[in-house]
Amino acid sequence: MKIVVLDGYTLNPGDLSWEGFERFGDLTVYDRTCYDGSREDLVIERAREAEVVLTNKTILSRKVIESLPQLKYIGVLATGYNVVDIEAARERGIVVTNVPTYGTEAVAQMAIALLLEMCHHVGAHSESVKKGEWASNPDWCYWKYPLIELAGKTMGIIGYGRIGQATGRIAQALGMKVLAYDKYVNKDLESDTMRYVELDELLAQADVIALHCLL
Amino acid sequence: MKIVVLDGYTLNPGDLSWEGFERFGDLTVYDRTCYDGSREDLVIERAREAEVVLTNKTILSRKVIESLPQLKYIGVLATGYNVVDIEAARERGIVVTNVPTYGTEAVAQMAIALLLEMCHHVGAHSESVKKGEWASNPDWCYWKYPLIELAGKTMGIIGYGRIGQATGRIAQALGMKVLAYDKYVNKDLESDTMRYVELDELLAQADVIALHCLL
Repeated sequence: MKIVVLDGYTLNPGDLSWEGFERFGDLTVYDRTCYDGSREDLVIERAREAEVVLTNKTILSRKVIESLPQLKYIGVLATGYNVVDIEAARERGIVVTNVPTYGTEAVAQMAIALLLEMCHHVGAHSESVKKGEWASNPDWCYWKYPLIELAGKTMGIIGYGRIGQATGRIAQALGMKVLAYDKYVNKDLESDTMRYVELDELLAQADVIALHCLL
Repeated sequence: MKIVVLDGYTLNPGDLSWEGFERFGDLTVYDRTCYDGSREDLVIERAREAEVVLTNKTILSRKVIESLPQLKYIGVLATGYNVVDIEAARERGIVVTNVPTYGTEAVAQMAIALLLEMCHHVGAHSESVKKGEWASNPDWCYWKYPLIELAGKTMGIIGYGRIGQATGRIAQALGMKVLAYDKYVNKDLESDTMRYVELDELLAQADVIALHCLL
């Protein structure tokens, strides 16, 4: 069985092993093929004869899918599967999978890290301390930027799916109130510190807004 | 009534108002007096005749307290009251107060901000993006340092009082397990993701250690 990874570099720049796939067949890994859809010919050439194609960002259009008669399975090495023409795959009975939760906690953690950098400017203060400004400060107490306390403030979260909820949990643990906007409302998630609102109210009330949605 | 603030600068470098105190008496605010205990004479001179003395870091030793016959109240403008000789104050019937919770959420937030800076190097990545490295990256995906995901990792917290618990709540929301060590154990706080352990086990098991205790 021929297995082709069209753009392995993003997932595995060298620190992971593809061995698990090698056990299932004849594996070829390309670092990149074409991200912008302009080289359908190259995608088809590389995936020819493949029963299994793995993609991260390389677009598998209807034309590509219809040009690969052996294809039985498309594995998207990411969460969003907008790079695959699902309808064309369905017509051919090709199974398409994605990885919906690999990044839930990591993305929420990153969103909070970005927020805390704005509140604390850790890197800049670290540099200042290394330059001796703390040691030479007469009060052992100073700040180069205003420090922002989040407790008691309100975070608006647009898109309250898995990642939005994970961000919301951390925000609440920081003492924040959470206002969520989503097409799908799950009232079970509401509490003293979290409720769903309309977008207008979210925008009017929030001190901080986190986007966990398609842009 | 004479009110003296011995070292107002740390609390109020200029962005707060002392007006609330002015309403109660004749207020004098010194930016700093002496932090290291070497100028008891200056402390006594400045606090002479005062019924109310407010201090942040200036030490009120037995000698100082015994030299201030009018003194009725010492307000510590901070959490730790180790700067006041409590025994000497008690003998004189002088009331001493501190501010035990003004920094609970702020300190916990700062501890997590420091941890997330180590996990994400937000400032360094921000600089890299501003230099155009993201725009020119062929994969729209890179990192200058390894990124560390906290979910599933273990935080050991030494000192599980108010601030330690606040840090522990955020850590758990980040998907971490918390091991706490404290002289005072409150079993009610334990859960699937938090338990008390002995110090040796904490040091052996923790991926990250937070100190919320006297050093």
